[in-house]
Amino acid sequence: MTKRKLNLKDKIRRPFKSIQKVGKAPGTVTYMGLRKDGTYKVSVTDYADDFYQAETLAKVEDAFKFRDTDTVSWINVQGLSNEAEIEKLGKYYNINPLVLEDLVNTNQRPKVDEYDDYVFCVLKMLYLDDNYKLITEHVALILTEHAVLLFQEVEDDVFKGVRERLANKFGRIRTRGADYLFFALIDAIIDQYFVILEELTNQTELLEERVYNNPEQEIASNIQALRKEVLAIRRNVFPVREISNRLVKTDHRLFHPETKLFLSDVNDHSIQIHETIEMLREMSMSLMEMYMSNVSNKMNEVMKVLTIMASIFIPLTFIAGIYGMNFDYMPELHNKYSYFIVLGIMFLILVLMLVYFKRKKWL
Amino acid sequence: MTKRKLNLKDKIRRPFKSIQKVGKAPGTVTYMGLRKDGTYKVSVTDYADDFYQAETLAKVEDAFKFRDTDTVSWINVQGLSNEAEIEKLGKYYNINPLVLEDLVNTNQRPKVDEYDDYVFCVLKMLYLDDNYKLITEHVALILTEHAVLLFQEVEDDVFKGVRERLANKFGRIRTRGADYLFFALIDAIIDQYFVILEELTNQTELLEERVYNNPEQEIASNIQALRKEVLAIRRNVFPVREISNRLVKTDHRLFHPETKLFLSDVNDHSIQIHETIEMLREMSMSLMEMYMSNVSNKMNEVMKVLTIMASIFIPLTFIAGIYGMNFDYMPELHNKYSYFIVLGIMFLILVLMLVYFKRKKWL
Amino acid sequence: MTKRKLNLKDKIRRPFKSIQKVGKAPGTVTYMGLRKDGTYKVSVTDYADDFYQAETLAKVEDAFKFRDTDTVSWINVQGLSNEAEIEKLGKYYNINPLVLEDLVNTNQRPKVDEYDDYVFCVLKMLYLDDNYKLITEHVALILTEHAVLLFQEVEDDVFKGVRERLANKFGRIRTRGADYLFFALIDAIIDQYFVILEELTNQTELLEERVYNNPEQEIASNIQALRKEVLAIRRNVFPVREISNRLVKTDHRLFHPETKLFLSDVNDHSIQIHETIEMLREMSMSLMEMYMSNVSNKMNEVMKVLTIMASIFIPLTFIAGIYGMNFDYMPELHNKYSYFIVLGIMFLILVLMLVYFKRKKWL
Amino acid sequence: MTKRKLNLKDKIRRPFKSIQKVGKAPGTVTYMGLRKDGTYKVSVTDYADDFYQAETLAKVEDAFKFRDTDTVSWINVQGLSNEAEIEKLGKYYNINPLVLEDLVNTNQRPKVDEYDDYVFCVLKMLYLDDNYKLITEHVALILTEHAVLLFQEVEDDVFKGVRERLANKFGRIRTRGADYLFFALIDAIIDQYFVILEELTNQTELLEERVYNNPEQEIASNIQALRKEVLAIRRNVFPVREISNRLVKTDHRLFHPETKLFLSDVNDHSIQIHETIEMLREMSMSLMEMYMSNVSNKMNEVMKVLTIMASIFIPLTFIAGIYGMNFDYMPELHNKYSYFIVLGIMFLILVLMLVYFKRKKWL
Amino acid sequence: MTKRKLNLKDKIRRPFKSIQKVGKAPGTVTYMGLRKDGTYKVSVTDYADDFYQAETLAKVEDAFKFRDTDTVSWINVQGLSNEAEIEKLGKYYNINPLVLEDLVNTNQRPKVDEYDDYVFCVLKMLYLDDNYKLITEHVALILTEHAVLLFQEVEDDVFKGVRERLANKFGRIRTRGADYLFFALIDAIIDQYFVILEELTNQTELLEERVYNNPEQEIASNIQALRKEVLAIRRNVFPVREISNRLVKTDHRLFHPETKLFLSDVNDHSIQIHETIEMLREMSMSLMEMYMSNVSNKMNEVMKVLTIMASIFIPLTFIAGIYGMNFDYMPELHNKYSYFIVLGIMFLILVLMLVYFKRKKWL
Repeated sequence: MTKRKLNLKDKIRRPFKSIQKVGKAPGTVTYMGLRKDGTYKVSVTDYADDFYQAETLAKVEDAFKFRDTDTVSWINVQGLSNEAEIEKLGKYYNINPLVLEDLVNTNQRPKVDEYDDYVFCVLKMLYLDDNYKLITEHVALILTEHAVLLFQEVEDDVFKGVRERLANKFGRIRTRGADYLFFALIDAIIDQYFVILEELTNQTELLEERVYNNPEQEIASNIQALRKEVLAIRRNVFPVREISNRLVKTDHRLFHPETKLFLSDVNDHSIQIHETIEMLREMSMSLMEMYMSNVSNKMNEVMKVLTIMASIFIPLTFIAGIYGMNFDYMPELHNKYSYFIVLGIMFLILVLMLVYFKRKKWL
Repeated sequence: MTKRKLNLKDKIRRPFKSIQKVGKAPGTVTYMGLRKDGTYKVSVTDYADDFYQAETLAKVEDAFKFRDTDTVSWINVQGLSNEAEIEKLGKYYNINPLVLEDLVNTNQRPKVDEYDDYVFCVLKMLYLDDNYKLITEHVALILTEHAVLLFQEVEDDVFKGVRERLANKFGRIRTRGADYLFFALIDAIIDQYFVILEELTNQTELLEERVYNNPEQEIASNIQALRKEVLAIRRNVFPVREISNRLVKTDHRLFHPETKLFLSDVNDHSIQIHETIEMLREMSMSLMEMYMSNVSNKMNEVMKVLTIMASIFIPLTFIAGIYGMNFDYMPELHNKYSYFIVLGIMFLILVLMLVYFKRKKWL
Repeated sequence: MTKRKLNLKDKIRRPFKSIQKVGKAPGTVTYMGLRKDGTYKVSVTDYADDFYQAETLAKVEDAFKFRDTDTVSWINVQGLSNEAEIEKLGKYYNINPLVLEDLVNTNQRPKVDEYDDYVFCVLKMLYLDDNYKLITEHVALILTEHAVLLFQEVEDDVFKGVRERLANKFGRIRTRGADYLFFALIDAIIDQYFVILEELTNQTELLEERVYNNPEQEIASNIQALRKEVLAIRRNVFPVREISNRLVKTDHRLFHPETKLFLSDVNDHSIQIHETIEMLREMSMSLMEMYMSNVSNKMNEVMKVLTIMASIFIPLTFIAGIYGMNFDYMPELHNKYSYFIVLGIMFLILVLMLVYFKRKKWL
Repeated sequence: MTKRKLNLKDKIRRPFKSIQKVGKAPGTVTYMGLRKDGTYKVSVTDYADDFYQAETLAKVEDAFKFRDTDTVSWINVQGLSNEAEIEKLGKYYNINPLVLEDLVNTNQRPKVDEYDDYVFCVLKMLYLDDNYKLITEHVALILTEHAVLLFQEVEDDVFKGVRERLANKFGRIRTRGADYLFFALIDAIIDQYFVILEELTNQTELLEERVYNNPEQEIASNIQALRKEVLAIRRNVFPVREISNRLVKTDHRLFHPETKLFLSDVNDHSIQIHETIEMLREMSMSLMEMYMSNVSNKMNEVMKVLTIMASIFIPLTFIAGIYGMNFDYMPELHNKYSYFIVLGIMFLILVLMLVYFKRKKWL
Repeated sequence: MTKRKLNLKDKIRRPFKSIQKVGKAPGTVTYMGLRKDGTYKVSVTDYADDFYQAETLAKVEDAFKFRDTDTVSWINVQGLSNEAEIEKLGKYYNINPLVLEDLVNTNQRPKVDEYDDYVFCVLKMLYLDDNYKLITEHVALILTEHAVLLFQEVEDDVFKGVRERLANKFGRIRTRGADYLFFALIDAIIDQYFVILEELTNQTELLEERVYNNPEQEIASNIQALRKEVLAIRRNVFPVREISNRLVKTDHRLFHPETKLFLSDVNDHSIQIHETIEMLREMSMSLMEMYMSNVSNKMNEVMKVLTIMASIFIPLTFIAGIYGMNFDYMPELHNKYSYFIVLGIMFLILVLMLVYFKRKKWL
């Protein structure tokens, strides 16, 4: 378990930055994200059982030829801000403009849509950046007859495993069709969620330890930040359950019956993720309760110290005060042993008090 | 993020002002709102792919001619208090009187009703007025064969975007039918919700900052006011999900298959809004918890100061009290160094106490 | 908004007073209510489009003749404790004895039952009595071919509006059949709920104001009483949603298609009522939280006063105590300016303390 | 309302005492309860419209003859620990061994099972014993063509009402078949729930009063005990809703259409019970909140007394301390009126303090 | 009730240790658990009505012969880390590789999958180890025509009862087919849950007692740990309800109608377990509330002691302070009885104070 501290963001994650789009015509292919430099990179991994080729393409048009070949092609577009090029690619692959709009809309909620000739899927990729901060990235996949088109904002190593399996012919991936690739890519994204949840669980455990040991005000903020993070992840991850559920039941012609067995695996995972997130939420609520109970206990402790000190010394001070009075006629003052008797009484009171507090279990 | 403060209303938003209508016969077309001056304004935007005309009409009867033309007409009625004129228009367009009743009933819950020859939809428009106060306005739309009739209480710029797209032939709007206009107007209203939610999220963040820095009593009221506001919006916005869900599944003859694709977009948005509102609700609850935990912590701090002061000085005062007693025979009093020894002991107690509190981490 | 205070009852409203019936045979027509004097009043409003007659009948048998006339008859029975007379009426109208049992069972949960020749509906009427106390009354309606039989415990003005519309031929009511009258009466009862909810909302607002201004213990009781009242109303009003939902979908031959349009109106209202009650519940919980937060804040304030007073004067008293000691050799005592120097030091400590508390924002 | 105190048990009611059965073969007819003496009592009430006979049988075999007679027979077996005899009876009546197993399993969850020739129903009987303690008893019913077999652990007067109606020919019971008797017995059990709920409501009200008047620690325990009791009852009573729901929809040949009307009555009741339990749960939570708010208020009160006392007398004591100092040169000491001036100042401070606290509403 | 303390683990139970698998190809048979030594043990219990044989096999291949015999065979594989051998067995029995993957995946969520020729079921076995710590073990079962293959990580005595019934011909087990064995094994696992829930209930009761008697900080941690344990069990046990529900409804050819009756028994149990876990959750929440209320009460008690001591002695000390002042002219000082009068007044104040606190019920 890494003890490195997750970078809990203070800001609420906005789900509705599509505010920039308010008033625009629907169906306009407009990139919604933050990486607006217009650059993009297209690479293709083309393979069959006995054939494998991976290359970076100079321009989008180079990807056209893969539409109709019998080999399976994974066309990977990184960078979504150049809408024109994406539209070009989409048009050639007969993708509906509305789909293209959702494709570049980085605020699009995860979903899967089945069309006659292709299946469109939007997911959120979660990963930790170098500063250990949680990053949410928009990913869109299109499954066609012989190809999978994958659109992402940044180049990420989430798909490294898939690439290796393709290159090295690990497992079944090379012998199967585009639908299996489609499944494998979705599976890779969802696998990553487990890493994040693992991390959040670690954080929860760390916070738990700190709550027990030292309930500072700062911890309350951390618990709330954790809770916000869990809420934010939930928004991105929950729709995955609907998606996987739908994929399991689909009878779209592009999915082979064998691939569906694997899809039910994705479904299993998404249920597990769902349950984990719910558990983390309960944990964070229970942590807050724990924190509040510790604060109350600390207060109790403080109050006990005060009460003990005051209860012991206030009466003693009173007795001292009595014999500090200046009345002319105070017979005790003149007795030789009075002083020691009074000291003795004071000591007795002290002892009685201590016994009393001991029995009350305050000491 | 604007730092301007949202005008949080103290009053609970009443959902049932239709109390004015208690006892009246159902089917009576009675305006329920507050703008009862009886004035109204009818304007028409008439267009086809190659034709565009926008005009303000002198009287309701001028809008009759648009019923049967092949062009698409957007008949916009602003001001709902002149029931007679609205009935006139409704009768000509063959609208059921019960529909007209709901149309002017500003307390009508958002809904969509499909009739043989038209589709009727009620929505709530949310916007911020000049005082940054949240305003809820009643909007009713009727989709007929060639026209969309839109009824609203005030003239608002929510539809400015649609108007511009019509006038300037942006996007697909001019090439499509009345059903697309119907969708575009609903979309414009829902888009506005995102602006409001953005604002509420800003407010939540501001409150969050203040809770952390300075938990005054006033903040608790603000959190509760925010929560009330969220509840109020929820009432108006939640039914939208049902509406959009219904529109997606409709097979009413007035909707072209292509338009339905766009309706599923509205559905996506309403799910997103739904989720955001739920998140805001959770945030506000979590803020309140945070606030309470801060109040407890402040209390703890106060108590610690008291306990430290009392625990140090009460015993010292007691010692001083002892040597202030007036017994005749107190041997210590007569020793030359007694005073300094006692001062030394006091200082020692002070230091021990400070060490004790330091180790308890109260200092 | 009336400032008059709702008479919040302290007792939990019992839903199960049918305890009196434990052990009795089912199907026995036994009145369950509190008005057991056996008196009753039967009145009939008989009307058609061009005919209207309202009369009070001497005995139940006088109502028999209305069963088969073509005019619509509203037979109103007030007082349910004379079971024999009600059975007589029921038998003539071919009502099942089990239905009659539910009819006089004032603990019957609201419901609607469709039989071959009639429709039976139980509702709860809510209104405020002269002492501003919330009263729940049992109402039962039977719709037959040409008549509506309405049974109630007390004579109430809830139906005044319907009566006036009938007498004065307002709206459509005179031109339509018994099913429309059935709907209009149910509508009148449900309309009354809005008045009650309005009142409860007023009370909630009043309590809210008081919570902000002066969180006395009494307010907590009031909030809880309000919550109980809301729970009690919910019990009576929630089933209405099922009822209206069922009426909307009914295909009973007694309902004309046109009347169903109106029934969907009732459905709309019951959804609105449902939502309002849920909102009131959330409000009352939020009020309680608010109250608790105010109590904590008051405590904080009290503690600050104590801490400030004690922190300032306890050290000063200690200093005074030192120079009150009676040691023979205390050099400071004999300096001419010592007293003033000590007073100065005390003043300095006072000022420093005040500055300290000022900076802590406790002052 | 009886003021007698419900005997709230401290132990959690175990739902899974079937732990004794872990590892045993399913289908073994093993009694699970606590009354293991092996004694049992069989009695039969045999009746038709014009015939009635009640007798206690010497042995189980005497009950065999009632299987095929045309009269309706209620065979009542009290005492479930003699499994052999019960198996004998079951075999003769063609009851599946698995059903017999559930029949004597006192931990069996309430349920209804329909078999070809009989209907099997398990319920829990709730009643208060002489110590006012809530007892849950297992009851099983089997409806066959001409008989109802009822199995119970103890003899109870829950069915007294049914017996009286049979003996005295009250109501319809004698004219109807075994299915009606089956319904009447279930109805009798469910009626008893209302008595228990009535009692729990009384307890809730009593606790409520005590919370308001005197929030002692003990009350918190009582509230929690009440809550546990409500939870325990819920476990036994909730399945009844499923059962009644199922019976209403059954098309088993043993149920006459007329009896189904009565079954829907049972359904009504079980919904009412369900709602009442939910209400009691909400009440107990609200009581706990109320209690906590009262505890906080008491604390506030305590703190105010302390603060007032300390704030008034600590400064005064300080002043007294000043003039108790032994400096040689303290000019005030020698003025004739100093003492009275100082007393006056002290009095002034006292008055000012009292005014201050008065205005803060702490007095 | 054993008073031995359940070993509540401090760590959150991770549901997603499959993190080790991130990036691997789906369908790879990889053991996920912690017992990776590669050892395994295969034993077979082969039986028919009149035949019984139990033996430990030397190698996996020895189990092949049982596939097609008419006797029922229970092939028990203990140790899942030798994937190769398991694949060998699986291949011979025609099990899909994906099923084998789930079989050795110790993180697999409980589920049941029906294939043409076999039924696959994953469950979690719960038991307490020697340190009284809760252990969760992965168990997988495959039902084929004539055999049940059971895969488990450790050898456990959960199935001892089944083994004994087989060996000694107790009950029906020997006369029935493999489907009955399949049911009996699942039943044995689920029976074990009752033992665990019994234990957790004991722990809850112990905690409850301690909360009442002595609310130390440690108890809060224990309550939270209990809650976590309940949450962890819930994750493993809840899916069982889906499984049993599905088995009840299955029409897979491998299940005889008679066995289905028994499966509905499993269903009953899983509902009971579900309810118990929910109850434990509510109990733990209610315990935490109870704990917090006790903490508040203790605080109240502490504050009362402080307030009583301070309120009594601070005024008295003040009076003593007055007569300790050194004014030249203080007439009271010189009166012979002044001292005794002042002592009397002090005593009077003391008595009045005590009466006051008595009446406030603070003493």
